[in-house]
Amino acid sequence: MSTINETHDATLRSWVESANAAGTDFPIQNLPFGVFRRKGSNEAFRGGVAIGDQILCVAAEHRAGAFSGEAAAAAANCAGPALNAFMAMGPGACSALRLALSRALRAGSAQTEKLRACLVPQAQAEYAVPAEIGDYTDFFASIHHATNVGKLFRPDNPLLPNYKWVPIGYHGRGSSIGVSGQSFPRPQGQKMPPGAERPVFGPSKRLDYELEMGIYVGVGNALGHPIPIADAERHVFGLALLNDWSARDIQAWEYQPLGPFLAKSFATTVAPWIVTLEALAPYRVEWTRAAGDPPPLPYLDSPAARARGAFDVRIETWLETAQMRASGAAAVSLSHSTMKHAYWTVGQLVAHHTVNGCNLQPGDLFGSGTLSGPTAGEEGSLLELSVGGKQAIALGNGETRAFLEDGDCVILRAWCEREGYARIGFGDCRGTVLPAVE
Amino acid sequence: MSTINETHDATLRSWVESANAAGTDFPIQNLPFGVFRRKGSNEAFRGGVAIGDQILCVAAEHRAGAFSGEAAAAAANCAGPALNAFMAMGPGACSALRLALSRALRAGSAQTEKLRACLVPQAQAEYAVPAEIGDYTDFFASIHHATNVGKLFRPDNPLLPNYKWVPIGYHGRGSSIGVSGQSFPRPQGQKMPPGAERPVFGPSKRLDYELEMGIYVGVGNALGHPIPIADAERHVFGLALLNDWSARDIQAWEYQPLGPFLAKSFATTVAPWIVTLEALAPYRVEWTRAAGDPPPLPYLDSPAARARGAFDVRIETWLETAQMRASGAAAVSLSHSTMKHAYWTVGQLVAHHTVNGCNLQPGDLFGSGTLSGPTAGEEGSLLELSVGGKQAIALGNGETRAFLEDGDCVILRAWCEREGYARIGFGDCRGTVLPAVE
Repeated sequence: MSTINETHDATLRSWVESANAAGTDFPIQNLPFGVFRRKGSNEAFRGGVAIGDQILCVAAEHRAGAFSGEAAAAAANCAGPALNAFMAMGPGACSALRLALSRALRAGSAQTEKLRACLVPQAQAEYAVPAEIGDYTDFFASIHHATNVGKLFRPDNPLLPNYKWVPIGYHGRGSSIGVSGQSFPRPQGQKMPPGAERPVFGPSKRLDYELEMGIYVGVGNALGHPIPIADAERHVFGLALLNDWSARDIQAWEYQPLGPFLAKSFATTVAPWIVTLEALAPYRVEWTRAAGDPPPLPYLDSPAARARGAFDVRIETWLETAQMRASGAAAVSLSHSTMKHAYWTVGQLVAHHTVNGCNLQPGDLFGSGTLSGPTAGEEGSLLELSVGGKQAIALGNGETRAFLEDGDCVILRAWCEREGYARIGFGDCRGTVLPAVE
Repeated sequence: MSTINETHDATLRSWVESANAAGTDFPIQNLPFGVFRRKGSNEAFRGGVAIGDQILCVAAEHRAGAFSGEAAAAAANCAGPALNAFMAMGPGACSALRLALSRALRAGSAQTEKLRACLVPQAQAEYAVPAEIGDYTDFFASIHHATNVGKLFRPDNPLLPNYKWVPIGYHGRGSSIGVSGQSFPRPQGQKMPPGAERPVFGPSKRLDYELEMGIYVGVGNALGHPIPIADAERHVFGLALLNDWSARDIQAWEYQPLGPFLAKSFATTVAPWIVTLEALAPYRVEWTRAAGDPPPLPYLDSPAARARGAFDVRIETWLETAQMRASGAAAVSLSHSTMKHAYWTVGQLVAHHTVNGCNLQPGDLFGSGTLSGPTAGEEGSLLELSVGGKQAIALGNGETRAFLEDGDCVILRAWCEREGYARIGFGDCRGTVLPAVE
């Protein structure tokens, strides 16, 4: 587990002035990685680091020869259109590059002029999914989400018997993962209307978002060789926002007995930036279970995971409707919560995923599952906010929503803060629903 | 849909003498594609075509300049370690290469000597998974399997209400797909013993195979652009044997509500050879539904799919235990059936998978689902053969099996035959269970 070091020092300031502004997602204490190019260009996508309102092009930095040793080797692996090779190097290389970047970007650094030429304004950039994602797995790690959704189907018995024992997950679709800014047509499919005798076909009427954190795998494991819980975090590169779009009506009809399929596979949106586990070190908190809940089975338990296993990542959903855009109104907040309420830690997800011998590969992506919190206002989906679609919520401009309408743009945001440390953010994860193609 | 042409002529003979032997899987009418290298070498894997007991190295053929035009362009795309680029060219290019190969390999071909130098004996070869599989989807297309398994859980109501409407499928794990010859440790995981109050952890005691056909995608589709049923087969490259290994005890405890996960993700085995849709043209048969079953919804229905939508691929499972190997005894047959009993056609699977806008990519893999037939002896898994493990089957050498034991090698075989046409086979798909790593 990463420890706190000089890169987390809250007093550090950067020669990139915008990184010192209050409220920026990307102060010098963050240094998240992504893949970008100049907007509208046919340049190759390559690795970059967000700093204030700029991106430091790591490939250009590498060509400029600013770093040496392990940091330089790591920078070289950021030059391509996906970060997999860098991710595969493991936390040591990632930490070396972070330290080199931190020192080079600090106010007064001797490398200021060399690196200034490697900056691209974020306003002039476009992004790609930051890794070639071999496999994408979606978990179900919030007991509050599982309970909220379970209540809609089984009011007296919302949680299934396996929930407190098994970090429930399922395989997701990799091909339709897109980066923030993604838009997609409303999915069509089969739905069984209440009381109907046969299904109907048409556009989903119960289209929803799910507020999740994505977890990128760094170092993989060989087939047949589980990752022990004590080593699990060494296989994690970092976290990013993820929207697991869901068509509830398609899901309700298709999901028995083999789980969600077309209800999810039409699109998944990730943020451009991956915040490394090291950057998150100051915001780790104790992982606990409610009194009376069973202890995790030994392969899911470790003292270190308990002591600082959880991440206090504050998460929010915002909605910008077509009407708001047309009228120049700002997006409205739908919910806010924190990742620390998750029932399973990131390390437990890794240990569970591999305990049967399944191999993870660098760049693989996990979704946390919808990160609803324990109290009202912390629901991570419209299904929960509208109580299964029965209580449409007011947006404050006269509009209401039970589920998403065409033109709706969902914006996920996240950040960490703790007294004595910088506020760091994850960058927006935006996605827009287009009309169905009929 | 591919039509019958000169490459299917049953009277064709090859100058590769072993291709003319009765019972070979690989006569000149077959010409399946795979990826291989010389066993134990550090050569690059490259594309090849099975002919008798030989492999024609397509890359070597291309360097020798035997073909021209579209066939040469297709051959060039077979030179790499995966067939994706060739698959992406579509059925026209595949057909052009098949025709050129058929002519060049016929007895009396002027290219005999040029191509003889491009042969590698199969006995000296090793194989790789023939495509980079971006996403793997497993379907549930046999109503007989769904009914057999459903009966174990719900004797009075074995089929769920959606089965006859929805081609049920779920996303599978891509990273653990291996080629025939794969061996893997018995998976460990959580299981809930009957009557127990809490789960236990340990090796699966109910390890099973599933006899499936794999379906490789050729040309993909863009996100948001469904593939109409009438075009669906133009997006399919070919079929191959697939073993969807399954840990029934892990599955029973984990699969609600999101479907199978660790019960499947430890290994999936595919055969080395992909038989193209064109090679299968003579063995297509009418697709029908039982009287009283609902017609497919319009997006899953087409006259062409009904007329010749099904594949009469004969499928078999064989078991070779460690004791059989030690005693020199032959493997025993466990079951035999045909793919034509599938409730959904390959074209319907493609149309359904994309109807929500999900994008397929060249080299993506579908599993058909366990292809059990309607009568006893046609069960595609031990779960069915042993009636949920309650009636162990006799292997004829004094051994019995309810589920797989360590050392068991499962061998899947398939072939097509029809009067007036050649018998073509799919090559063995073998996989072996190793002891759990505890």
